[in-house]
This record gives sequence, structure tokens and C-alpha cells, in this order.
Amino acid sequence: MAESIHDLSKLCVHTQTTKPWSLEECIRNYAAAGIHALSVWRHLLEDLSFAEIRKLMAGHHMDVVSLVRGGFFPAGAKHKRDAAIDDNLLAIEQAAEIGAPLLVLVCGSDPDQSQELSRDQIREGIARILPEARKAGIKLAIEPLHPMYAADRSAITTMAQANNMVEQINDRCLGVAVDVFHLWWDPDLKQELFRCGQAESLFAFHVCDWNVPLKDMLNDRGLMGDGCINLKQIRSWMEEAGFDGYREVEVFSDSYWAMDQQAYLEKIKHAYLNFT
Amino acid sequence: MAESIHDLSKLCVHTQTTKPWSLEECIRNYAAAGIHALSVWRHLLEDLSFAEIRKLMAGHHMDVVSLVRGGFFPAGAKHKRDAAIDDNLLAIEQAAEIGAPLLVLVCGSDPDQSQELSRDQIREGIARILPEARKAGIKLAIEPLHPMYAADRSAITTMAQANNMVEQINDRCLGVAVDVFHLWWDPDLKQELFRCGQAESLFAFHVCDWNVPLKDMLNDRGLMGDGCINLKQIRSWMEEAGFDGYREVEVFSDSYWAMDQQAYLEKIKHAYLNFT
Repeated sequence: MAESIHDLSKLCVHTQTTKPWSLEECIRNYAAAGIHALSVWRHLLEDLSFAEIRKLMAGHHMDVVSLVRGGFFPAGAKHKRDAAIDDNLLAIEQAAEIGAPLLVLVCGSDPDQSQELSRDQIREGIARILPEARKAGIKLAIEPLHPMYAADRSAITTMAQANNMVEQINDRCLGVAVDVFHLWWDPDLKQELFRCGQAESLFAFHVCDWNVPLKDMLNDRGLMGDGCINLKQIRSWMEEAGFDGYREVEVFSDSYWAMDQQAYLEKIKHAYLNFT
Repeated sequence: MAESIHDLSKLCVHTQTTKPWSLEECIRNYAAAGIHALSVWRHLLEDLSFAEIRKLMAGHHMDVVSLVRGGFFPAGAKHKRDAAIDDNLLAIEQAAEIGAPLLVLVCGSDPDQSQELSRDQIREGIARILPEARKAGIKLAIEPLHPMYAADRSAITTMAQANNMVEQINDRCLGVAVDVFHLWWDPDLKQELFRCGQAESLFAFHVCDWNVPLKDMLNDRGLMGDGCINLKQIRSWMEEAGFDGYREVEVFSDSYWAMDQQAYLEKIKHAYLNFT
């Protein structure tokens, strides 16, 4: 089993976790709470200039772990696939502007076509944006999503599929973002994490919990310790597999978003220190 | 690709599909609509004696395909696991009484323990009831459920896991119930169906569709053709794998249950003939 966590030095919070806050509020409030890493959701980039964001980050000693999210490559119509490429190229630029070394990809899926075709289009899409990512010094991480999102959000639903695609494309800039919410149930998880680690492709680690019962498919995630995921076990596998990066708290939760967000941030720290 | 379906001879409807109807209404109305096979949900057994049910079935030339459902083996406390065994033994008796050759198992999962331990308890539970099933001439089918139910309904979430368990227990009375709702997304589905067919363990085939978006995790299933599942493809794999039994329509749907059920039954037949 992994060592207990004693400090916040590897805690990263996704801005979407505290959705009621603006990017500026996230930066100021995380830093005031002793949290010095965040992953930025793209819609928050609209409120500030890149220069303002960089200044705020620097002033609060804030490390930007990733930009969330690119992807959504598959579509029946070519003009839609091209539009997705443009959007991903924009995301790469945005990541470079705010100093995020990684762009997370929610790869997409089109319910009007087969999963196989969607995966082919994901492969093509990633291949098209990789040269620009490389040029900009930005890594890309495929985030396999839970199979309940297979129809319209991601045709990549397991670590095995993510590993397969990373191996097929075979580029040092491409790896995997592991999110326990999506992958905890998979009996092959341990071996596929090790396979990914062996290939040095473990690029990110997202934590939260699976509430029982789950009241909503999207916005009823739990904080670590709230649900049934054996988080310490999965963290130990990640570490055995060679991952030593941030643990990113990514929680979408109508009930936590309804709380006072300062009090919630304290709960996040407690859950991180005790149940991750 | 499989042949088109031209008649209703292999259509079976689950009583839960037309949930507003009593068992007697299901039997009378299905038969009047030209449907002569059904799978019976256990709570409907409370309203009639076994003799009455047998008489109704015979009088309407109704074939009973399966009794739904046993299972739910895992639990932390031994007395709960023992109670589950008792309930499964009762289900075997009930199946024998109404002439159902098969009992479908929703295997269960306990969110307070690991999936591995839950699977161990499923294996033990099945091993304990198999001798009684064999004596009664009742087959048992493990139904792998979608991973979104892994926490509290089934620690068996893929065909691969179901096949593994069937191979481990290795008893001619134990096989698999394939439900497209649970399994459609799995990239290994085809090969695992073939593996199951090779072992002569394909015991049942449940059809419906996956609505996009899915509004409810339990009761928003679509009729065949409503959603994104490539049903004809999966049926062709089943048939190539050697399955030639009933296609069982199992749809849980608040919106269809709110319809006039006679009109709905006509929709079921149409969906079966055109989109299965």
C-alpha cells in the first residue's frame, strides 16, 4: 500500500470542482488555502487575458497542471471533424499561453456510427494535432471515460483501449489521464496501469469517488471517501507504476457546488489527506 | 450480417417490459398479439397460484423462457449471504413450478468491499445453489451488467468476466445471459460471445436499446431502433456463435410504461421485426 499523504504539495484542484468560482477566485482561494496547483477548464479563459492569468498564477505561486479539455474528434460529417481539429489547435495555443504542459482529451463518440469508426476518427484527429502540440511543447493525454459515456462522449472506455491507442500512435507527447471515477470497476485496471507506466505514458491522475447510489450520471461525483472506490489501492498502483505527479481533484457535484465554496475547499483538503 | 426477422416465433417479452400489467394480463395480451413466449419477473408470482399460472400458460400456448431474477450473492455479513442462498433456492423452486427452464442471475455487488471479494462470494453462492438447480432441471445464467452498476448490482460487468466465472465453475447447468444494454460498448464483445458460444454457454439473449442521451440509469431504456446499439450486428454475432434461442425484449422505461400498453405491444413487435 502507498504511503499516507502528509501535505498538500501534490494536491491539484480542477477549477470545475469549485464551479461557482471564477478563475481569479480559484487562484486566490486555492493559494490562500495552501493549494498551489490547479487544472484549468477552458471556459474560464474567457474572463481574463492570458497576461492577466499568467500574472495571477505567478503572483500566487500557482502551478498549472493541465488545460481541460480538448478532444471530441468523431463526427459523421467531415466539416465537423475539421472544426474539432481547429478547436483542438486553439486549445494547444491556450495551453501554451497559460503555461499548462498538458492538454486533457475527452475523445468523443458519435452515436450515429460504430464505436470502431469513432475510434478511427479519434486516432486520425490526434495524429493531426500532435505535430502542433509537439511544436508548442504541450503533451496530450487521452482520458478514457466510463462506459456509460460510450455513446456520445468517449469511444475510449478502458485503460486497455487508451493504451492500445497510445501504442499505435507511438509519440512521446501522447499519454493517458487516469480518472478513478471512470476506471475503478475494471478488473484489468492494475495490469493496464502497469503497462501504461512501463511505456512512461501515465500523464495525469484524477481523483474523486463514486457515490452509492449515484443520483446523476454527470454531476453526482463524491469527494474521496464518500463512495465505494478503493482509492488508496489505485493510488498505490499508480505509484508502483512509476507515477509521481499531482493528484488532481476533479469533482462534479450539484450538492457540493451548492455549498459555501470556502468550506468545501477545506473538505477537499481533508478528503485528500485522509482518503486518497 | 444475420437474416432479417420475418415472424414472431422467436420473440419473447419480459413481463417487466409491460410493467403495468399483471401476469395474467401479460399472458392473455401477449398471446392475443401473437407472442407466445415470455420471461417472468418473480414479484408477479405473488398474485396467482402455480397451478393457475400453469393453466393460463398452457391455455395460451405460452412458452416460459426464464424466471427473473436470482443472484445478489455478495454481502459482508454471513447471515445476509445465507439469506441470499435461501432466496435463490426459492427461485429455483419457483422456476420449476412454472416450467421455466432458466433462472437469470443478477449477481450482486457490495460497495463496502472490493469487487474481487464480491466476485469470490458470487462464485461461492453459485456453487452452493448449483446442486439444487441441477436436481430441479433448471439452468442458471449469469447476466453481466453494465459497469455503471458495478457498485451495488453486479461485480460481473463484462462478457469476459462472465465467461471466466462460467469456466471456473465448469458446470453444464451454468451459462450466460447476454443483454445488449449492458454489453454493447465492449470492444471485446464479439470475441467473448464466440468464446461463450464455443463453450455452449450462451443461454439467453436480451434486447432493447441505449437512448442518447440516457435520462435515467435504470428506467430509460429504448426499444430496439430508438438508440445507438448496433443490434443487428450483435444478433449476427450471437447467431454465428451458435445461439438460436429466443430474443427477449427487456425494456425498463418510464415513458413506455406511461403509454397504453396494447399500443406499446404493437410498437414492440414493430421494433422486433424491423430493428433487431
